[in-house]
Amino acid sequence: MGRFLSVDAGIFEQWMQRSLAACELALDRFVPSDAPAGLGEAMRYAVLDGGKRLRPLLVMAANDAVRGDAEAAMRAACAVELIHAYSLVHDDMPCMDDDVLRRGKPTAHVKFGEARAMLAGDAMQALAFEVLTPDAADSAMPPALQARLCSLLARSAGHAGMAGGQAIDLASVGQQLDECTLRDMHRRKTGVLLQASVMMGAACGQASVQALTHLSEFGAALGLAFQVVDDILDVTQDSAVLGKTAGKDQDANKPTYVSVLGLEPARALAQELRDQAHKALAASGLTHTAWLSLLADMVVERQN
Amino acid sequence: MGRFLSVDAGIFEQWMQRSLAACELALDRFVPSDAPAGLGEAMRYAVLDGGKRLRPLLVMAANDAVRGDAEAAMRAACAVELIHAYSLVHDDMPCMDDDVLRRGKPTAHVKFGEARAMLAGDAMQALAFEVLTPDAADSAMPPALQARLCSLLARSAGHAGMAGGQAIDLASVGQQLDECTLRDMHRRKTGVLLQASVMMGAACGQASVQALTHLSEFGAALGLAFQVVDDILDVTQDSAVLGKTAGKDQDANKPTYVSVLGLEPARALAQELRDQAHKALAASGLTHTAWLSLLADMVVERQN
Repeated sequence: MGRFLSVDAGIFEQWMQRSLAACELALDRFVPSDAPAGLGEAMRYAVLDGGKRLRPLLVMAANDAVRGDAEAAMRAACAVELIHAYSLVHDDMPCMDDDVLRRGKPTAHVKFGEARAMLAGDAMQALAFEVLTPDAADSAMPPALQARLCSLLARSAGHAGMAGGQAIDLASVGQQLDECTLRDMHRRKTGVLLQASVMMGAACGQASVQALTHLSEFGAALGLAFQVVDDILDVTQDSAVLGKTAGKDQDANKPTYVSVLGLEPARALAQELRDQAHKALAASGLTHTAWLSLLADMVVERQN
Repeated sequence: MGRFLSVDAGIFEQWMQRSLAACELALDRFVPSDAPAGLGEAMRYAVLDGGKRLRPLLVMAANDAVRGDAEAAMRAACAVELIHAYSLVHDDMPCMDDDVLRRGKPTAHVKFGEARAMLAGDAMQALAFEVLTPDAADSAMPPALQARLCSLLARSAGHAGMAGGQAIDLASVGQQLDECTLRDMHRRKTGVLLQASVMMGAACGQASVQALTHLSEFGAALGLAFQVVDDILDVTQDSAVLGKTAGKDQDANKPTYVSVLGLEPARALAQELRDQAHKALAASGLTHTAWLSLLADMVVERQN
């Protein structure tokens, strides 16, 4: 277990609220309102005022664990959220999951049309890398850190990460997958970006190779736990609680942890992954891991 | 006029063929064949074996002008071509231009379906930034140069550049635009990425602020000339010569330089922009600008 699990829940809540408010302000500043022909409006619709912001919280918590640079971490947090938000816009489109509800609102293509939604997603991916590479006049972020963060983000968003996972997801509709293949799909589709969030936060400070290895293990366990819980909530919650269409994986005949393992074994797996995450933190040798530890709890205990 | 226009056309042709062959080899190495669920196949289809590779040639020619690092320039050349190729995949999709022919072949969504084409485009954008941020084990490219190239590429691909221009393009169907608005649209849609190609090549070496300013002017003039000529060819050539559907701007009722200015004034503008490009090179104080100068000629004189 993490060393600071005895931390007051109220203090964690305060840290979260403060971090979320700062992240919202930063996103509001980074996402342009003046992009031409309604593009800015669509980008802002897709990324502001919504979402759990789990990835930004992981970046900031990992940065806290290594006592890193807060401004760099905030840029990393916004960049990873931009990648996540663009992936949802594209994923919801008719040629993909064809979904009309996201974060309790009409999806971007319903609101702005398919063409503008696709372009907004494309521009959001580019914006993520703009945010990570500020001009020297705007930021003291060292160029080597900028390059490192771009490297981590690009690799987690691309063919070996998120986009690759979505391709497997598409191809797996109606297929019987074994747990190993399902795990590979989810690791790429959501796990790699969650893990990258932790590693990007850690990159903003100094940490030993050993600490980074254990943070990477933590991110992998948390990333997989997130998806297992997502699959559980998809069948146990309704759309109003989720803020997105419930039961859609089942309806789409997509393999999930619940369909492959069953509901109770899936719940047990989520708990096991939480334990793995806590153990990895304990092994890291880092002392300020309370927020990371509590975020892992939150991922497993969440109801939406 | 450039200082080396007397260079033998055969020597330029040799430089181009050598550069194009090297670029093709590098792209073949960078674009994965093993990305999951057919994603790699779609990415390779969209970027290999086709295209004029004007952007990579501009990167390499600008790098030559500043006597820069050839390996870094090759990565920059491949990255900018990946961005260009992904934009074509998305631009051809039914919700955008709905085109079935590109580089003489079926478009990516015709060949692989819309979902995989969209994901391939998304993964190609991410790959561009992967290529620019190699591990130290794979490349001696300085991290500060990696960051600088990511910054230039992201800003030219995003809302202020290419994606923004495409949004204006979408919104302009059936509209009467004045030349100023048309110029802004084209500057963003194609000009900014062509200009960025020049600036990325120049970033791989050392150049004075004055030289960079003139190279930027060169890139802007060449970028606009490219689009004016594109508009001319759209009405004067047939699909077989172009390798893409001819007359489609006219059919789609999109404003073009030909529709706004007329054919002969558009041709005169292309010549004027070529002169501007040559003058900017002459003013740069750089001595190895023969390839850039001849590329500007090629852009204006091309037949497809």
